[in-house]
Order: sequence, then C-alpha cells, then structure tokens
Amino acid sequence: MKKLLLFFLISSTMFAQIERIEPPFWYAGMHNPELQIMVYGKNISKYNVSTSNSIPITKVERTENPNYIFVTINTKNIPPKDFYFLFKENEKVIFTQKYSLKQRRENSAVRKSFDASDMMYLIMPDRFANGYLKNDSDKLTTEKYNRELPEGRHGGDIQGVINHLDYIAALGATTLWITPLCEDNEAVYSYHSYAQTDVYKIDPRYGTNEDYTRLATEMHKKNLKLVMDYVTNHWGLQHWMMKDLPTQDWIHQFENFTQTNHRRTVIHDINASKSDTKICMDGWFAPSMPDLNQTNPLVLNYLTQNAIWWIESSNLDGFRVDTYNYADPIAITKWTKAITDEYPNFNIVGEISMRDQAQLSYWQKDSPIGKIQNFNSHLPSVMDFILSDALLTVFNEDGNWESGMAKVYNNFANDFLFPNVNNLLIFAENHDTNRINHVYKNDIEKYKMTMSLLATVRGIPQLYYGSEIGMAGNKDDGGDAAIRQDFPGGWEADPINAFTKEGRTQGQNEYFDFTSKLFNWRKNKSVVHFGKMTHYIPEDNTYVYFRYNATDPSVSELAKQSVMVLFNNSSETKTLKTDRFVENIGNFKTGKDVITDKIIDVTKEITLEPKSALILELK
Amino acid sequence: MKKLLLFFLISSTMFAQIERIEPPFWYAGMHNPELQIMVYGKNISKYNVSTSNSIPITKVERTENPNYIFVTINTKNIPPKDFYFLFKENEKVIFTQKYSLKQRRENSAVRKSFDASDMMYLIMPDRFANGYLKNDSDKLTTEKYNRELPEGRHGGDIQGVINHLDYIAALGATTLWITPLCEDNEAVYSYHSYAQTDVYKIDPRYGTNEDYTRLATEMHKKNLKLVMDYVTNHWGLQHWMMKDLPTQDWIHQFENFTQTNHRRTVIHDINASKSDTKICMDGWFAPSMPDLNQTNPLVLNYLTQNAIWWIESSNLDGFRVDTYNYADPIAITKWTKAITDEYPNFNIVGEISMRDQAQLSYWQKDSPIGKIQNFNSHLPSVMDFILSDALLTVFNEDGNWESGMAKVYNNFANDFLFPNVNNLLIFAENHDTNRINHVYKNDIEKYKMTMSLLATVRGIPQLYYGSEIGMAGNKDDGGDAAIRQDFPGGWEADPINAFTKEGRTQGQNEYFDFTSKLFNWRKNKSVVHFGKMTHYIPEDNTYVYFRYNATDPSVSELAKQSVMVLFNNSSETKTLKTDRFVENIGNFKTGKDVITDKIIDVTKEITLEPKSALILELK
Repeated sequence: MKKLLLFFLISSTMFAQIERIEPPFWYAGMHNPELQIMVYGKNISKYNVSTSNSIPITKVERTENPNYIFVTINTKNIPPKDFYFLFKENEKVIFTQKYSLKQRRENSAVRKSFDASDMMYLIMPDRFANGYLKNDSDKLTTEKYNRELPEGRHGGDIQGVINHLDYIAALGATTLWITPLCEDNEAVYSYHSYAQTDVYKIDPRYGTNEDYTRLATEMHKKNLKLVMDYVTNHWGLQHWMMKDLPTQDWIHQFENFTQTNHRRTVIHDINASKSDTKICMDGWFAPSMPDLNQTNPLVLNYLTQNAIWWIESSNLDGFRVDTYNYADPIAITKWTKAITDEYPNFNIVGEISMRDQAQLSYWQKDSPIGKIQNFNSHLPSVMDFILSDALLTVFNEDGNWESGMAKVYNNFANDFLFPNVNNLLIFAENHDTNRINHVYKNDIEKYKMTMSLLATVRGIPQLYYGSEIGMAGNKDDGGDAAIRQDFPGGWEADPINAFTKEGRTQGQNEYFDFTSKLFNWRKNKSVVHFGKMTHYIPEDNTYVYFRYNATDPSVSELAKQSVMVLFNNSSETKTLKTDRFVENIGNFKTGKDVITDKIIDVTKEITLEPKSALILELK
Repeated sequence: MKKLLLFFLISSTMFAQIERIEPPFWYAGMHNPELQIMVYGKNISKYNVSTSNSIPITKVERTENPNYIFVTINTKNIPPKDFYFLFKENEKVIFTQKYSLKQRRENSAVRKSFDASDMMYLIMPDRFANGYLKNDSDKLTTEKYNRELPEGRHGGDIQGVINHLDYIAALGATTLWITPLCEDNEAVYSYHSYAQTDVYKIDPRYGTNEDYTRLATEMHKKNLKLVMDYVTNHWGLQHWMMKDLPTQDWIHQFENFTQTNHRRTVIHDINASKSDTKICMDGWFAPSMPDLNQTNPLVLNYLTQNAIWWIESSNLDGFRVDTYNYADPIAITKWTKAITDEYPNFNIVGEISMRDQAQLSYWQKDSPIGKIQNFNSHLPSVMDFILSDALLTVFNEDGNWESGMAKVYNNFANDFLFPNVNNLLIFAENHDTNRINHVYKNDIEKYKMTMSLLATVRGIPQLYYGSEIGMAGNKDDGGDAAIRQDFPGGWEADPINAFTKEGRTQGQNEYFDFTSKLFNWRKNKSVVHFGKMTHYIPEDNTYVYFRYNATDPSVSELAKQSVMVLFNNSSETKTLKTDRFVENIGNFKTGKDVITDKIIDVTKEITLEPKSALILELK
C-alpha cells in the first residue's frame, strides 16, 4: 500500500512528461497476448521502462525521435487489472504512468458479424441528422459549423443517428456503415473525415467515444449491427503525429508532393515497373493525406491495435476498410489476419475499386486468383464495383450482346472466380459515385429495378442514405457535395421531415414504402441470402433468374424454397413463356409478388410491364 | 501366296460393297497403338470382320445404322505393312479390303512447331492467288467459279500459295495459317470452307491432298511452317455422312433449326441454366453447319484420328482450331490431349473468342483459372481477342484512364492470369474482324503503330493477308466479302501485281517495306520472342515498354539485350524524359531505330513524332 501511494504521488507530480499513451488502455485475455504501447513525451526515450505487478516487458523500441518509446508487454494469463509503467533514470523512478487491462465483454472474441443475411445502410454522419446542437462546432477543432457551405460542416452527429435507428430498422436495414467518425481536424472539407487526425478519438463534432459505444449498444438492442469505416492507407496532414514523426519512414515522403497513380493493377502486373509500383503504393491519396508506411512494423502494429481497440471498446460488428489496396499488400494482409485471428467471425469488407472480376477476386480471402501469386489477403469481403458500374447504367440501356440486362448477366457469369460470392458487398452507389436517382432521373421504376436486383442476387446489399426517399444529386455538376446532401428532416428547421411517413411527400413515401417492403421481405429469406442462383441469358432486354435452396427431388417440399426474379428493361410490355424455365419452375404453379402480394400463375406465361421488375415467391 | 491371291480375287470382285474406309491408311509406330477404322457400305454391319497377318482386332462396334462398322485394331509392334480386312458371313469370306500401315517420317513424333519466334501469316486460299486455272471449277463440286460474285468462288488455290512463298518469306512471315482447304460442297458461299463435306479430302478447287503435302514440303525448304485450320465443332450440311448418319447422335439434332446462343460463358458460369448451356454447346453455328456431338466416342475418335492423319500425312507444323470452345469442353480436351500426346511439341492455337482475360486464360493448358473448376484444356495456345479488340480502336482514341494507350497497358496488366503468355496468338485483325486499314482509314502511321506493337509484345504475332500492302475493306458495310478481297496480282489479269516491288504502287511499297523490315528484324530477336517485359503507365497517350533478357548485373554484357518501344498516340510531338525509365535503361546510352537504323541518344530524353512508334535496340 505504501509503495502504491508513492507511485501515485510521483505519477501525479510528473504526469506532464507523457503527452500520449496509445492504446490508452487494453484488454486482458486477448488471443494475441503481445501489446505494443506507444508512449509520447518530450525526451521520453531516455528513460528505462519497467512495470509494477511483474507484467513482463518483452521489448522496448526506440526510434531516431527521442520523444517516442514503444514498450511491448506480454499480457498472457494476466487478469484484468490496473498497473503502472515506471520510467527510471539511473535506477531512480522519475515518474509513472497508470495503465489498465480491462475485462472483455462476454463472448467478445466470437462476436457475430454481418453477412449476406444483412442489408447495410451507408450514412455520412455530418449529413444525416443533427442530434446535438451544442457540438456543431468545437473549440478543439478548426472547422466550424456552416451549413450554408456545400462542403462545410453541417452538424450531423452520432446522436442524430441514434435518434433515427427506428427509421433505419423500419427500412429493412440491419447494419450501418457510417463513414469515419474519428477526429479530422483539417481546416476545410473535414466533413468526410477521411483525413483523420486522431484515430483514438471520435471527432467532438460527432460526439464522444462514449457516444459511439452508446450507438453500438442502442443498435444492438434493435438487432442492428455497427460497421466502422477504417482507414489503413493514410491519415490527415493535421494528425498530431505529423508534427513530430516517430520515425521518418512512418509515412512515405517525397521531395515534392507525389500523388498515387491509382493503377493498383501494378500489384499483380508481372510487367509493372518498379517506379510505377512505388508511386502507386507510396504516393499520397491527396495532399491532405500522408501515406502511411505499413511496412514499418511499428506503424502496422499501431494500426492493428487501434483497429482491435475500437472493436473491443465500442463493441463493433464489422469494418469497412477504405482504399484497402492502396496500402502495402503484404502488410495490409497481416493487419487483416491479425484482426480475424482475434475475432474469427468478424467480417471486414475492403474498398477494392477494381473493374475486372479476376482483379477483384484477387483480394478476397482464399482467392484462387491471389493464389496464382501465392497471395492471400485474408480479407473476407470485397466491394463489387463491377456490379455497381453496371447498375449505374444498365436501366438506361437498350439490350444487345453486352449492354442492357446482358451487362448484369455477364457480371454474374464470372462468379466462379470468387472464393465466396455471398460475401461480396453489392451496391448501386455510395458516397463516391453518382446517385442512382440522378442517373435514372428519378424514374421510380428504374429505382425499383435496381433495388429488386440488389435485394435478390448473391452478396450483401448496401444502400446509400437518402436514395430510399428519392434523393438525387449530380456529382458531375456539383462534385461530392451534390451526392452528400443533408437528409431532409435531420435538422429541426427542415421544411420536410422524411424520417416520418407524415413528414414525407407522397413521392418520397412511394420510394420509402417500396424499399421498406422489399428489404423487410428479404430479412428472413435465407434462400435469397445463401441459396443457389440460376440465371437465363437475357432476351430482348429481359432477364430472369431464380434463387433456390433445393432441386434434389428427395428434399422435402417444405424445405424447397424458390424465388423467381424477372426484369423487363425494355420499353414494351413483354410476355415470357415459362417453359424455358422449367428446370427451375418444376412443379411450382404460382408465384406471390413480394411487393403487391398478388398471386400469379407461372405455368404458362408471365407478363411484365415495361421497365419493371417482378419478384415471385414460388408456391 | 496362294491365299493372298485368293483374297485379291475376292476383293476385286466385291469391292463395290465398301464405299468409304476412314482413315484411308494409317502409320506404324504411333504413340497410341489403337486405331478405330470406320467402314461404310451398304449393310456392312452384317459381316464379321477379321484381319490377315494376325493384326489384332480389339473391338468391333456397330450402330443402329447397318451401313457402318467401326473396327478397332491394335498396331503395337506392327511394322509398316499392308494387310487385309476380311468380311465374312457364316464363316465364309465374302470380300476383303486392303489397308496400309505406312512408315512414318523420321522424327515425326518430335516435330517442331510454331512459337513466339514465329510470325504467322493468315491466308484465305480462295482469295490469295490462282495458281491453276483448270481447277477453278470442278465437276464433283457444286459451286462454280465466279469472280464477279463477292461471296463466290474466285479460284485461289494451293498452287497459288506455293507460287508466292518467296513473297511471304520476304515479308518476314515464318508460318502460314491457311483457312480450311478440305472439301466444302455447299452450293453457295463455299469459299470460306468452314462447312466441310469431306474432311479427308482437299477441295478439288484448291488442289489435291498431294498438292497440300507438296505445299508443306516446299514451305519446309524455305523454313516456313504450315498450320492447318481444323474445325472440330461442325461439318457442312452437305457432308456425305449427313445423308446417312452413323448414329442419330453423331450430330446434335433439334426439332427446328436451333442456333447456338454463342454465350460460351455458360461453360464456367456456376449460375448458368442447363437449357442455355445445352443450346450454347449443341446449337448449330449456322444452318449449313450441323453441330458434331464430340461426347459420342465414335465421333471424337473420328475427329482425333482425322487430325493426326493430316499431321502425319501432310507433315504439318501446327493447328489453328476453329470455334474451339463451341465443342463439348471435356471431349475437345481429350481431342487436344490425344494430339499433343502423339506430338509433344506440336502447337495448337484455339479460337477462343472470349473478351475477358480470365475467361480466355481458362482455355489455355495448365490454366490456374481452369483449375478453379478442375478443368485443363491441354490447349497450348489461345487467340488473344482482347488485344485485338484494343488494337482495332486504340490508335483512334484519346488517352484517358482506360482509353488510348491505357487500353493496351491494361491488357498486359493481366498477363499474370495466363499460364503461358508467350504462347498467345496476338493479332489486330483476321478474316472475321474489320480490317485495320479500314478502321484506321489507311493512315499508314497507325498501321505502323499497330505492327510495331504486334512485333514487340509477348506472343505470336499474326498478320492478315493484304494488310501489308494497305488492303482495307469495310465489314460493317460490305459484310465478310469486304474483308476477304482478292490479293492484287493473285490473278493473271490483275492490273496490279502487289507480289512484286515493281508491281506495287508507291503506297503499297511503303506498307510492304515497313512490314518486311520490321518482321525480318524480329526474326532473330530472341529477346522479343521470349524476353521479359516491363511497361510504364501511359502518360498523355504515350506508352513505353522494354523487352529484355537480363537485368542481373552478373550477366555478361554480351548476353544483355534490351529493346525499348515507345508510342506517341497523341497528335502532338512529345518529348519523354528518360530518367523515368532508369531501371530499364541502366547503362545503355543509345538506341538504334530498327526501321531507319538511326542511332538515338537515350540518356536524357527522346522525342516522338505525333502518332508514331519507335523501336530502339539499346546499346
């Protein structure tokens, strides 16, 4: 007791010496018992470090910057507890630092995650709903509230999301992907928050770390899952570390600003030049985004522990990883594997913006394409940008050999290249693409076709906030701001509150009701989540496919489920004879339209309105 | 002796009984000793078959058609010899049939074939040169000579090719792919000869089987290689067998004419419907082309033996296989493997008209993509239609993220998907595509860029006859006839004889001289045939790559070869600083322009004319 008291006195008097300690706390009983703690403070590296309570230090690393010291401890078999780091000079304790190994939540390691049974709703938090007015600006962050500025801070926050969880659930969404919430202290254009300046801290304009954890808690009560948007490739130029880098190779530095060339094919291209490869991987994404050097084990450890810390401390259900394959491929693979080793069921979807299925497959865990080069990303899920490209044009196209519905058909014809098609994140649009309601000029029939497809093909469907009430916006004209507008009703004074049926216009309700009906129907349709697919070659810009879970005649009638999905992308009414589909229709006689609940005879022919989709549960 | 004489007497009196015996002869000492001989004759199946000279019969197969009998003999350890088949009824020999096992040419099994050191020249024989006037029409074939008809028979023949072998060699070509020469007895549109009616016989309008063998012999004297265009998928409707099918399932039959849907993705598409797959694989290519059922072992054997028979009897150097993946995939694989088992060095290039590298790779021997589905085609070479598509547009395009030179760059960025990139047949055009000189409006600079690329990237370059003298022709307007015009000078009365320098116009000589210089230069450049490639991301529609065979400093200077290839696809003069390419330029100081022989300094910058290519041998 006497000894501890002594520590406390020393610690309190000398605390100013340490400016940061990261991770700020940790957990007992992790799969990986090693923990590398970064301690930052003026000339900190001159001290010898030891611990109280015989916590073993396995490694102490110093860099060329005396203000950092990296202390690795082994937490194996250490119960949850607080302990102290002792900083000594000439065998004398100069100061101490308390550190906590906390108790993990029950079953934390085996937490469930999102999968194809989910529907993911994507929110940009600054633009969704303003829950707390008092944090619209904050004294510690530079950019202040200005809703007049299209690229300014509009005040949306975590509380705004919490306030509208019932809306999200009513829509049929089960998972939320919220773009980054950590501090982004850029002076302008900070609302997208991809130039993070403190990755251990929620931006005060969104709320606190506690608010974020509360969001997860509230979501879990409603059976909703929370996915964090994690950025491994870069931080913001205003990140506190940039002013005093731990090592010069913490980030990739160039004589003059050097932007990535974005040609991520260099990674697998056997003909790529070394110089192109270097610029691709090490060049910066933007002048405000220093490129992290994940090949430095200190950096990689920092990112890995930070990611795990958020999962554990805020009780997360998944990650979406930004610009995934702009990072060093081997290093990012280690990052991903470390997380999934820690949480074997945890799903991570990477932004792999490749436009070729083989190139996209390359990045999915256990890919036969990656295997060609002995590469395994360990990344469970990838974003299907190829389908997105198709969905952003196809319903405006005439049908020929490769356009119109053939473009969609061709997309699924390459499914064999993927190790796990069910774990592709599928979407028409997101915060970087044009909005479909712009592309389709708010033709609700084309919206319905898009959603009908996303709701019924393989993969995890993702919706971008606001499309479900018809939000449009032209990126080509208005830039990012045009596709990231405020959700109407997220701000008290908004003339329309699209969060409620009464607040929505009739037109908005048409969009919402369709979307809600469709995705609520999908919620329990395991045949759509994980069933097989058979599709038929498009004819005259029509396209038909089935999802089903049994064709084996020995399977009981009860177990047989089949959903027939039909598209007429032409401008004429089409009547399709159903004998072409006999191998899937089998003995089914009728189909229930999942939107209108109407029963339709499927034994002879099915008539489709111009520009329409029809989803039939076969009976 | 007495016995043999008896046979002879019987044989001559009763010979009329047998109408066909195929293969008409065979060879001793083949790798596969089994030979299945088809005997055709009225009610032939009622006889028991045996052999003279104790040649063992291992199997006799009869079908529902009594006019066929399939007799399998085992030729193991049998020396070259003639022997007799004895056809008996009630133990009595009714008639006999002589059969020959011939002596193989020396080293026949290990014959060399074509590879990336070759340049392949593609000829449509009816349209190249008329060597014999007397065979322009023939009494046994229906369609007669009519050079006025764009789709008619124009009289070109094998002798015409033989007459111009020096022209072909002078061009720098080393290999000839001639479109099919076997009999096509369609009443009209027979000149393309893909609807073959007797696959053991050269069409008399082209010459005789002996002429074909003589062509090979003459070519070999000039170090030229002969590649046969083999059709495994279909025969012509006028094929003699169609009137009296050996079995009803010899071909795929439908109630009404059913054309293939051409969607060959069904083969690997895990979502494909059975009905689409059936129509794709079993549907006919055209009404005049019955689709062969290669899954019937009798059919497969027939095709395999026929192919081997041509190699052996006419001394061929390779196959190009038409519509390769319209045939049953497993069966066609067996066909290919049987041939390459027989001739381990024999190259076979399949027409795999897929527009996605993974899908194309799927069909090359030992493909990692095929392996995903435990499929190995055993096909050594595939036609690179993706590069062809690019070359047919790229030199008309502005450069952006994916058009202009980026389209070419992107093509090579997927090389890792192929098991053997050096064995891709690369081409800008063939007898089914538009002609590049049409696409490029006879802009010779664009022609030069196209050829410069084909001559210096990985793969086996293929040229389509006539482009080397600027032949154009618009397929969109004039159909196939427009791209299959007669070579000027192939007919005696032609006003221009483009086979000679004197006969060619100045413009034609410009085309020819460039092509000839380029491909003669390529002939001995192993660094271009099999060297490594490094390419650089296109900038401002310029593109630079290197072919090289050593970067290892331990390799002697003599062994180091490097070719630098530069394209300026923009309409402005471009000066490229060469420091960007230092990893390839290394200590080289100069480059010799392989067309003009000018020496250029490469240490600082290189200036490129608008729309130009430059090939430099580095020194």
